[in-house]
Amino acid sequence: MADASNTGGEMYGLVERLYPLIRSITGDGVRETFRLVGEVTPLEVHEVPTGTQVLDWTVPPEWNVREAWVKDPSGQVVVDVRDLNLHLFGYSIPIHERVPLERLQEHLHSLPEQPDLVPWRNSYYEEAWGFCLADRVRRSLPQGEYEVCIDTSLEPGSLTYAECVVPGRTDREVLITAHTCHPALANDNLSGIAVAAYLARTLRERGRPRYTYRFLFAPGTIGAITWLGTHQQDARRIDHGLVLSCLGDTSPFTYKRTFTGGHDIDRAVEQVLRERDAGTALDYYPYGYDERQYNSPGFRLPVGGLMRARHGTFPEYHTSADNLDFVSPTALEESLEMLTTVVDVIEGNERHLSLNPMGEPQLGRRGLFRSLGGLDDPAGTELALLWVLATADGQHDLLAVAERSGLRFHTVRHAATLLHQHDLVSPIER
Amino acid sequence: MADASNTGGEMYGLVERLYPLIRSITGDGVRETFRLVGEVTPLEVHEVPTGTQVLDWTVPPEWNVREAWVKDPSGQVVVDVRDLNLHLFGYSIPIHERVPLERLQEHLHSLPEQPDLVPWRNSYYEEAWGFCLADRVRRSLPQGEYEVCIDTSLEPGSLTYAECVVPGRTDREVLITAHTCHPALANDNLSGIAVAAYLARTLRERGRPRYTYRFLFAPGTIGAITWLGTHQQDARRIDHGLVLSCLGDTSPFTYKRTFTGGHDIDRAVEQVLRERDAGTALDYYPYGYDERQYNSPGFRLPVGGLMRARHGTFPEYHTSADNLDFVSPTALEESLEMLTTVVDVIEGNERHLSLNPMGEPQLGRRGLFRSLGGLDDPAGTELALLWVLATADGQHDLLAVAERSGLRFHTVRHAATLLHQHDLVSPIER
Amino acid sequence: MADASNTGGEMYGLVERLYPLIRSITGDGVRETFRLVGEVTPLEVHEVPTGTQVLDWTVPPEWNVREAWVKDPSGQVVVDVRDLNLHLFGYSIPIHERVPLERLQEHLHSLPEQPDLVPWRNSYYEEAWGFCLADRVRRSLPQGEYEVCIDTSLEPGSLTYAECVVPGRTDREVLITAHTCHPALANDNLSGIAVAAYLARTLRERGRPRYTYRFLFAPGTIGAITWLGTHQQDARRIDHGLVLSCLGDTSPFTYKRTFTGGHDIDRAVEQVLRERDAGTALDYYPYGYDERQYNSPGFRLPVGGLMRARHGTFPEYHTSADNLDFVSPTALEESLEMLTTVVDVIEGNERHLSLNPMGEPQLGRRGLFRSLGGLDDPAGTELALLWVLATADGQHDLLAVAERSGLRFHTVRHAATLLHQHDLVSPIER
Repeated sequence: MADASNTGGEMYGLVERLYPLIRSITGDGVRETFRLVGEVTPLEVHEVPTGTQVLDWTVPPEWNVREAWVKDPSGQVVVDVRDLNLHLFGYSIPIHERVPLERLQEHLHSLPEQPDLVPWRNSYYEEAWGFCLADRVRRSLPQGEYEVCIDTSLEPGSLTYAECVVPGRTDREVLITAHTCHPALANDNLSGIAVAAYLARTLRERGRPRYTYRFLFAPGTIGAITWLGTHQQDARRIDHGLVLSCLGDTSPFTYKRTFTGGHDIDRAVEQVLRERDAGTALDYYPYGYDERQYNSPGFRLPVGGLMRARHGTFPEYHTSADNLDFVSPTALEESLEMLTTVVDVIEGNERHLSLNPMGEPQLGRRGLFRSLGGLDDPAGTELALLWVLATADGQHDLLAVAERSGLRFHTVRHAATLLHQHDLVSPIER
Repeated sequence: MADASNTGGEMYGLVERLYPLIRSITGDGVRETFRLVGEVTPLEVHEVPTGTQVLDWTVPPEWNVREAWVKDPSGQVVVDVRDLNLHLFGYSIPIHERVPLERLQEHLHSLPEQPDLVPWRNSYYEEAWGFCLADRVRRSLPQGEYEVCIDTSLEPGSLTYAECVVPGRTDREVLITAHTCHPALANDNLSGIAVAAYLARTLRERGRPRYTYRFLFAPGTIGAITWLGTHQQDARRIDHGLVLSCLGDTSPFTYKRTFTGGHDIDRAVEQVLRERDAGTALDYYPYGYDERQYNSPGFRLPVGGLMRARHGTFPEYHTSADNLDFVSPTALEESLEMLTTVVDVIEGNERHLSLNPMGEPQLGRRGLFRSLGGLDDPAGTELALLWVLATADGQHDLLAVAERSGLRFHTVRHAATLLHQHDLVSPIER
Repeated sequence: MADASNTGGEMYGLVERLYPLIRSITGDGVRETFRLVGEVTPLEVHEVPTGTQVLDWTVPPEWNVREAWVKDPSGQVVVDVRDLNLHLFGYSIPIHERVPLERLQEHLHSLPEQPDLVPWRNSYYEEAWGFCLADRVRRSLPQGEYEVCIDTSLEPGSLTYAECVVPGRTDREVLITAHTCHPALANDNLSGIAVAAYLARTLRERGRPRYTYRFLFAPGTIGAITWLGTHQQDARRIDHGLVLSCLGDTSPFTYKRTFTGGHDIDRAVEQVLRERDAGTALDYYPYGYDERQYNSPGFRLPVGGLMRARHGTFPEYHTSADNLDFVSPTALEESLEMLTTVVDVIEGNERHLSLNPMGEPQLGRRGLFRSLGGLDDPAGTELALLWVLATADGQHDLLAVAERSGLRFHTVRHAATLLHQHDLVSPIER
């Protein structure tokens, strides 16, 4: 896994450090996660107390784990959360008792069709306890009495989320978010966390962007609900948004459109996918990750989802096979590069008015065009100059020019800049 | 033909009883038809006097037939309306004379390319007489003088049509209509008459529907013109309509869209066709049956046409081969079932507003969702719950939810009902 | 080339006479061109002085050529504009001197990949001189000193363009234009000039058309710019327009749509292409010929482009192979016929209101329909009658009826005329 650039390697390193932490929708594992992410880009960490009403939901008790294991009748440890944090059924209540195998079985979760993999399971809002293990191990358990120890706390505390805001020239926002509640699942979603963190770092290192970028790291569902419930005014400033998940595997990209589709974020991502032949776009569907909350009828924020392998459809999904071997520095690097290009499109997607709209301006005398006539192979920038001039009616943004012309956005953007420098077009405020 | 349910058999029995009646656009055959249909569902029968101006048309004289036959030179009966009512050219004026074969030929109609079939022909608005017979028989006629007897009356009387209105919770109407003017043609349109009659009976037996359903049995063209000319205010209450014809054969369904397409009736029928992979939809064209009148520029009522085999395109069309063997109880039953499902869609196609539009409501605590997290195979109702919640913005009717989600309408409808019961959505009046 | 009708032959004859003239964007060759075109249809010739500001451009000096040749070291003439007017680089400044081959090479233009063809090159707005020749000849030039003689004048004068206006019943205009600046290139654009001239003659010989037709013969780019700059009010009267080029070769037609597409001129040309299976339509792109000027943001006139072989894509393009053998009387004739049909569509494309909109009118009693019922093969005019009646709501023009019905425009137009004669529909003014 040493084949990628430095940033890919750094992102992979972050994923490695986050992997063993015991994360859930609350708890110290989340706080430690944010401490490590904060080494990449500064985070503002927020704590929302248990019991806080957020929209239709209530912030649940905080869950922390000290130890959790099962010993077989001979005293041998069968599963231990320290070996793999997926082993402990998420939000398990504390318990320490001896139970016969038959009763233990009611609390075990495994995957008969993937007998070597440990599944990930949890129950946040109904009290339960349990362990997840490989079906092959489960089937080998001898009869007898087992000692079960789950030393957890499920008590009033808080839900923790973190933000990194990169201020722009306007207060209109681009929301980039990744869910932080999954334990040792490298692609879903340590990859999304890592790519978001390094995108934030990249943007901070550049000059002030046009838009304000808000990076939100929060647990799935309850985290987005909590943020929306406590930031209803801020939410109205979101012009574009992306939910990042599963960005470390080697599949082509999958873009999930906003509820209506056709928003600038949809067009931007689809343009970049098309230019690179890098994947496909799917219409919105109301399951998946936190795009569900942002796109709900009362918000309808233009927030799409960017993934590589699509959640729920790859065999490693929500199992122990979504481990450090399933993600790579190269894939993380490609994902970051994809996102920075999307940001470039959003930033550069302006509308223009021609300052010389009647007929074509004479490009030749401005040094913008070949002076030798009679040829007819306008290519690259020259073609883009003609397209931008032809469409500079205030109706077409540069994405529309790229979509219509088949030229790359970057080429179109460059032509618009040249024409602006020659006072032939003027960008208009929206 | 004993393979269908009781209702299919009953509809087939009605077709059998209607088959021998001498029907045309007026006359006692029509009245007897309505008497028999009235045994299935109560009908209000209307008589419109000859000479009544209806829109651009005039109600023609009433036509009745006592006997009609031709004897060959040897006195042998060659054709007799009593054997098959198609034999008599429709609206033949009375005549009783002896004519040589050559002159008789000018009044005979046959199908050289289908030499064993008797065609159906008529002339309602220009005086004429004639007989229809198999081309094979026609070609075997010996030279000589023939005795022609057409004992008909073509006199002031009335045009007869019938209605069955099933009142709904609103006075907005669904029009279901079938033409009643064709004689012994089983598919076109005894099948349409039978299915309409049994659909009316089905609706009467249910609780009060949302819409008022008007079943109209009337002769083609002049009947629809007469109804429209005398019910211009009523016509404005029609929100959805279907012209039924050719519903007893075994072809897949053919739906003919309204003039513009995209009306709720179009979407409802196309949804059911799609769910069942039961046939295809065609854009509107201005020939066919009475949809022509309802869709004319001055009315533009949203009335489509439902058929199985498409009129004018099957070899049995308008011939003696469209007989009792060409239709079956099973096919009639399927057609009725198709229509009741379309009615269910129209009835259930409401728009909803989410009562908890900001973010998703917590379904788990309401017992509407699996409490066990970490899985991601939302199926059936659960998926439909999410779709209805995501679209409950007052803009999407449930058909739109079905169209967009790919779920069956019934599943979507069920989810909306559940959500309404839990006070999560509210249907809105249109 | 004697296989076409008389008009095809006449057009070809005009192309032959125009071929040897030394044409450019200004000069006596253009004037002589208009004198010859004026023999076909009367032209109003306009002179716009050098230095006139037109939109963003300035009318350039006038260029005239007396002689231009190169002699090799042995005194042998290597290229001479009198042999082929492409030999002289367009707008070459006057020069008469002796130069070594190496320096001469900097002023020579040839096509290494088409070594037997002479290219066409020019430089209107930057001073330059040069010769164009076959690469095979160029490569055979011996070392030594060459005598170069370019006896041209590049002085204040004027730009010449010509118009032929065929007045119509309204002052709304159809613009038909062809660029006149290319020298010995038969397809591009002597074919366009010839077809435009004969279309003008055809329209003048007919009765007064509905629209006013303006035929504009002007140099490419600067000519259109000059006309637009001096006719900004007139330009607003253009409802439909076509730029004609490359209409003498044997390729299928290529139609280039207006900027937005969907204008009546787009629909008319595409309808005729479809009816004849005569070619394809392409979306607008901002390079090509003078449609660029008419469609620029400040004008956005509905002007499309009609070609056969598409400019810039055929191997003969802008070379000596675009000669009299490359075009044919038959192809010119077909192009003229195509255009007259497009004109017929534009002229006949009216909207109608039914005068009997409620239900269908009774066509039978008006002799407009078969009186014999029971058949169902409505064809040709009868079908068109039904379509026109069904769509006579003031929303559908006859092109829409043809598009929707699949009938030929001519058939639909004929039906509308019949219905108008029977007072069943009335055309409405737009």
